[in-house]
Amino acid sequence: MQNKLFSFISKYISLTEDEKNALLSLNLFHSLKKGTVLLKEGQYAKESYFVLSGCIRTYYIIEGEEKTTAFYTETDVLTPHCVIHQTPSDYYVSCVEDCILTISNADMEAEVNSKFPKFEIMCRKLSEELLAKQRIDFDEFKTSSPEQRYLNLLQKRPDLIQRVPQHQLASYLGIKPQSLSRLRARILEKKS
Amino acid sequence: MQNKLFSFISKYISLTEDEKNALLSLNLFHSLKKGTVLLKEGQYAKESYFVLSGCIRTYYIIEGEEKTTAFYTETDVLTPHCVIHQTPSDYYVSCVEDCILTISNADMEAEVNSKFPKFEIMCRKLSEELLAKQRIDFDEFKTSSPEQRYLNLLQKRPDLIQRVPQHQLASYLGIKPQSLSRLRARILEKKS
Repeated sequence: MQNKLFSFISKYISLTEDEKNALLSLNLFHSLKKGTVLLKEGQYAKESYFVLSGCIRTYYIIEGEEKTTAFYTETDVLTPHCVIHQTPSDYYVSCVEDCILTISNADMEAEVNSKFPKFEIMCRKLSEELLAKQRIDFDEFKTSSPEQRYLNLLQKRPDLIQRVPQHQLASYLGIKPQSLSRLRARILEKKS
Repeated sequence: MQNKLFSFISKYISLTEDEKNALLSLNLFHSLKKGTVLLKEGQYAKESYFVLSGCIRTYYIIEGEEKTTAFYTETDVLTPHCVIHQTPSDYYVSCVEDCILTISNADMEAEVNSKFPKFEIMCRKLSEELLAKQRIDFDEFKTSSPEQRYLNLLQKRPDLIQRVPQHQLASYLGIKPQSLSRLRARILEKKS
């Protein structure tokens, strides 16, 4: 798992052995069982998550109903917006599968960044990339029909369709579970 | 306009006179007429935009129809995702109003960041903030009905409703122009 983390980081900056050891001394790696809730609505948080294996999701509870807004799988990064804004969280984060995550917090990051300024460069590049990626997803969501959204997902993240429960997938796609079933049936029919 | 830029920057880092002069020497400020197209589908680009006054928008042309996905007004920042990914743009950027923008490019930014590492810190903080803000907008869009989206906009960016054409606003809200008219009539009726 260490190698997975270092290989991810090496896309942005090259690390010396000292820097690798500094990271390893932070006790970043955590194994979590499926169903673990990492963050609840109303809580304050400082943690960022990097998914080494497994899947976590963010969801709101609106009028008693769960609304899943995002799934994070291998090498995805999540810093909940409540961490940036230092406000109580308005959503939940939980493990859809057994997970291995690195969990870092704002204090750790400030310490590492001040000791090794190149981490600042990595964080900047990573945030810019995530911003661009999220914008593409948002634009696609805005400009697509539910059927197109499902087809995009099939193309871009086919594993998700197998990994997550259908009702979570439906709200992620912004549709009702019954509509997702009908839509899948329609697509299968077209293919056959 | 210089003061507006420096006041924005001062939210993230404090600048010395030397650093201010380095920025001013870059010829960042540009006045542009309403309707100016800053970026076209298919073009490669290196430019980021910071809106000092006016409004710019991003839009796709899909099956001959414009789909507006975002509006950027005073103190908003846009780095098109094609700049980050170094791919041809899949959308257009144009001025909805007469604008004063700072336009910087990736080379300038690399130069400034290497000379003054604190700009790296600003870019990192800003990207993290924009990522969090965009995530909130995306989540709201996903979990809201068209009527709620309009009410959210009324609350968060009431000026937009006066500033931009209705058909652009409709596609920004992910609905048809006729639906926007009906929805506005319905809200007005409830209020009266």
